[in-house]
Amino acid sequence: MPTNMSNNVGQSLSAIPQDVIFEDGVTLDSGRTFAPINVRYETYGSLDRKRSNAILIVHAFSGDAHAAGMHPGGTLPGWWDNMIGPGKAFDTNTYFVICSNVLGGCQGTTGPGSPDPLTGRPYALEFPVVTINDMVKVQKRLIDHLGIDRLLSVAGGSMGGMQALEWAVTYPQSVATAVILASTSCLSAQGIAFDAVGRNAIMSDPRWNNGNYYDAEPPARGLAIARMLGHITYLSDESMGMKFGRKLQQRSQFGFDFDDQFAVESYLEHQGGKFVDRFDANSYIYLTKAMDYYDIGKRYGSLQQAFEQGSSKYLVISFTSDWLYPPYQSKEMVFAMMKAGKDVSYAELSSPYGHDSFLLETTRQAEIISGFLETAYART
Amino acid sequence: MPTNMSNNVGQSLSAIPQDVIFEDGVTLDSGRTFAPINVRYETYGSLDRKRSNAILIVHAFSGDAHAAGMHPGGTLPGWWDNMIGPGKAFDTNTYFVICSNVLGGCQGTTGPGSPDPLTGRPYALEFPVVTINDMVKVQKRLIDHLGIDRLLSVAGGSMGGMQALEWAVTYPQSVATAVILASTSCLSAQGIAFDAVGRNAIMSDPRWNNGNYYDAEPPARGLAIARMLGHITYLSDESMGMKFGRKLQQRSQFGFDFDDQFAVESYLEHQGGKFVDRFDANSYIYLTKAMDYYDIGKRYGSLQQAFEQGSSKYLVISFTSDWLYPPYQSKEMVFAMMKAGKDVSYAELSSPYGHDSFLLETTRQAEIISGFLETAYART
Repeated sequence: MPTNMSNNVGQSLSAIPQDVIFEDGVTLDSGRTFAPINVRYETYGSLDRKRSNAILIVHAFSGDAHAAGMHPGGTLPGWWDNMIGPGKAFDTNTYFVICSNVLGGCQGTTGPGSPDPLTGRPYALEFPVVTINDMVKVQKRLIDHLGIDRLLSVAGGSMGGMQALEWAVTYPQSVATAVILASTSCLSAQGIAFDAVGRNAIMSDPRWNNGNYYDAEPPARGLAIARMLGHITYLSDESMGMKFGRKLQQRSQFGFDFDDQFAVESYLEHQGGKFVDRFDANSYIYLTKAMDYYDIGKRYGSLQQAFEQGSSKYLVISFTSDWLYPPYQSKEMVFAMMKAGKDVSYAELSSPYGHDSFLLETTRQAEIISGFLETAYART
Repeated sequence: MPTNMSNNVGQSLSAIPQDVIFEDGVTLDSGRTFAPINVRYETYGSLDRKRSNAILIVHAFSGDAHAAGMHPGGTLPGWWDNMIGPGKAFDTNTYFVICSNVLGGCQGTTGPGSPDPLTGRPYALEFPVVTINDMVKVQKRLIDHLGIDRLLSVAGGSMGGMQALEWAVTYPQSVATAVILASTSCLSAQGIAFDAVGRNAIMSDPRWNNGNYYDAEPPARGLAIARMLGHITYLSDESMGMKFGRKLQQRSQFGFDFDDQFAVESYLEHQGGKFVDRFDANSYIYLTKAMDYYDIGKRYGSLQQAFEQGSSKYLVISFTSDWLYPPYQSKEMVFAMMKAGKDVSYAELSSPYGHDSFLLETTRQAEIISGFLETAYART
């Protein structure tokens, strides 16, 4: 039962990173058993007596386990702090919220930069190709470890939406609802193409060195270029126009020195440079490949057949200006869910912020998710 | 007067590259006098007795002087061969058609890869920053050299559209009409951002060597990445979906080997690789900067004030799926032309082919341009 929603409203969550090692690992989609696997995760709120109030938050491509609150002594709030906390959409007065870093990532969970126990050196490209489903298998191990039989919800945007979808279809007994934001059941050719250019930028940096750079300088330029490009696709023509337009960052005269930059150039270079400090180039390659290969409809024969697997309720949200995971892709999912006779709510929210809307434009999405979860929780 | 349009229909045009050197050069927008300037150009059809049937075709970013026909012994038709020739939109039975490579380019006209007469070595980054207006100044010299006082029309798409616009506004006595396809009076922040990522890819390639690579291996990887990205922006989500979808190029099994590629990846890598053989990385930097800096409204105070300069008639065409030079930008120009009291025709053509529509989807655009030119020519 929901507790009083006004409890602790406005208090800052304390976020404690935790680790668990699964020594026996998981059997990957490729058939290979991969072990051991360390999982970095955080939890917020408390599990209720019936263990029925657990919500798994699944992060997007460059996200991590730090979804909300502040680390002790830290200064950086979690990436979805506007959505998770006391009185927020994922209300930690009511729900027990879990977020873990994905398999193949670089922020605590085992990935290509982790040491291979056989050699003591980072896996680099010896790390196996992993799929969205493989990420979910590892999350299932974490949920089992936490003693949770059935999640009230799995929720995420972008690559997180793919994982939420995968949970609902592949572990229908283990999840009551899925919240899928700004996502798709499979990337378009254009989406794959952008990922491919990013990977090419990394792999063309001589410092990438076929993935073996962990004891040297990393391929920072290549990774920064990939991130610059990524950023353009996360925003929209309209939001970039509003934020930067044709403003010049540094310029005395008109057009006679290449050092003169538009504000949007400086911004992208700054974002690219910052990213290098927190992200591993090989993880960039593995995770974008996992997204590109993801196609749950193909795996189950059709999207409708995929959704016939599960009994979960769905909430699907897309954003008008998201051209990387455009609304038409969400609608394709929703139509297939309906044809499969599933309980689905769909909202296309008007927002100028492009794909990043699920991180930025959270007022209406928070209201919708809050109501959806309340109803689901009341039925447990 | 138009000659019989059925003359020579279907015959292949013979295209002869020609060069002219302007030893005294031009005074650039930067104030610097730059000389000498070689201009590579081609002409198709014949100048009439009144010298009133000349049309200047201005090429897009990666285009060249070879707009139509076939070089003697050559196998590659010009880049707008579907639009220029006997019986075509730019009917060479009626019009005298000229196309020249732009200043700063790398296909015959002086650019950063040309030898600096002071040193005998390529200019590289000693080449001056050039603007769209500087390109047009050089074209004006060519037109004078050919003995043409007034062009019947200047026509081009994309960066070519910027030049056509510049001609009409800055040389109103010298051009009767301007045909502006898939273009803009200034790039959006998103457009600038894509160009910036491309330049970063080139400049991050160690072989770029601050522009000094002419006696060594060129920055082929960086240039190929820039071109791959460019290609995505020239197409559309829809056309990439139709052409490639999620087709796999080489794959035995599902998702367990990074060598497995989607068809769209192979296509882009192929296009990137091919481009390197015909384009100079420094020209990529100079020409994208010229596009980014272009803002004719800013130069004249406002777009309306810019258009008040000239007496040219305008034909503006945009394409529904063009998201790099989107229709709203064409409409902004058209509104300003109308406010300035100019004679303007505008068509937004429905096409799935994105920005490249002006090169690919030519049936309707050809009909419109053909009619527009006939009317203009009849009035001479």
